[in-house]
Amino acid sequence: MLGRTYEGEDCSAARALELVGERWSLLILRDALFRHYTRYSQFQSSLAIAPNILAKRLSTLVESGIFRTRAPETRPGHQEYVLTEMGQSFKPVIIALTRWGDQWISPGPVEFVHHQCDTEVEHEIRCAACGDDLPLADVQVRLRSPQPAG
Amino acid sequence: MLGRTYEGEDCSAARALELVGERWSLLILRDALFRHYTRYSQFQSSLAIAPNILAKRLSTLVESGIFRTRAPETRPGHQEYVLTEMGQSFKPVIIALTRWGDQWISPGPVEFVHHQCDTEVEHEIRCAACGDDLPLADVQVRLRSPQPAG
Repeated sequence: MLGRTYEGEDCSAARALELVGERWSLLILRDALFRHYTRYSQFQSSLAIAPNILAKRLSTLVESGIFRTRAPETRPGHQEYVLTEMGQSFKPVIIALTRWGDQWISPGPVEFVHHQCDTEVEHEIRCAACGDDLPLADVQVRLRSPQPAG
Repeated sequence: MLGRTYEGEDCSAARALELVGERWSLLILRDALFRHYTRYSQFQSSLAIAPNILAKRLSTLVESGIFRTRAPETRPGHQEYVLTEMGQSFKPVIIALTRWGDQWISPGPVEFVHHQCDTEVEHEIRCAACGDDLPLADVQVRLRSPQPAG
């Protein structure tokens, strides 16, 4: 467990990192999301990760609800790791991380495209009121308003 | 160093994680980006991290070009850690991670707003051709075309 954040309040970023805040977990998610890997052997071959670490990371990701396991009909005795909706929803994090690496380290071998028209996608942070694509400096945080009871 | 990725090709996500792929580094970045922390004591107080680990993480983040140090005129002998443009550009990763935590773990105490109009922002992945805000399932990767020489 991480220490306190936001003066004792739980922060979603901190809690998200308790589930996925480790390089291997993030790379497993990358491979599942964008290479559509589902098998232990595929992750193993892609990441060259120690078998005990990979098994532990996959197991934690299943416990967290990010993957579910299934037994493929065509391969009895084997197990596949399939992203849940929670896991599928992690895509924007990997996209944002990759684009930062592309910009500040060096362009990687892949780009993100709209599958149907094969056009590169843009990642925008947009104001719901103005409709503007915002410069990052204009995006700040505020404390969430308390939700009405009942 | 992580093992090979993308069949031996460097991947920007993997290289980005070599710089920031560790929970404390990501939380230090969160506090610098959104709480505007610059001082060792502020990070220490926020994260309750062991001093030697915090010093090492800050030093690595400076070496990576994510922070630069400066000596504040008003506090001789002290050092501040200021985000570079590279560090400022990391904001979308923290936003995406926090929103995932908000959605799948539980809503955190903060929300992201357009500073000028105090309206919550939307995070969109948009197709440059269609202009559509894309469902995540429609966002895929393709190998980047080789850049023309010269």
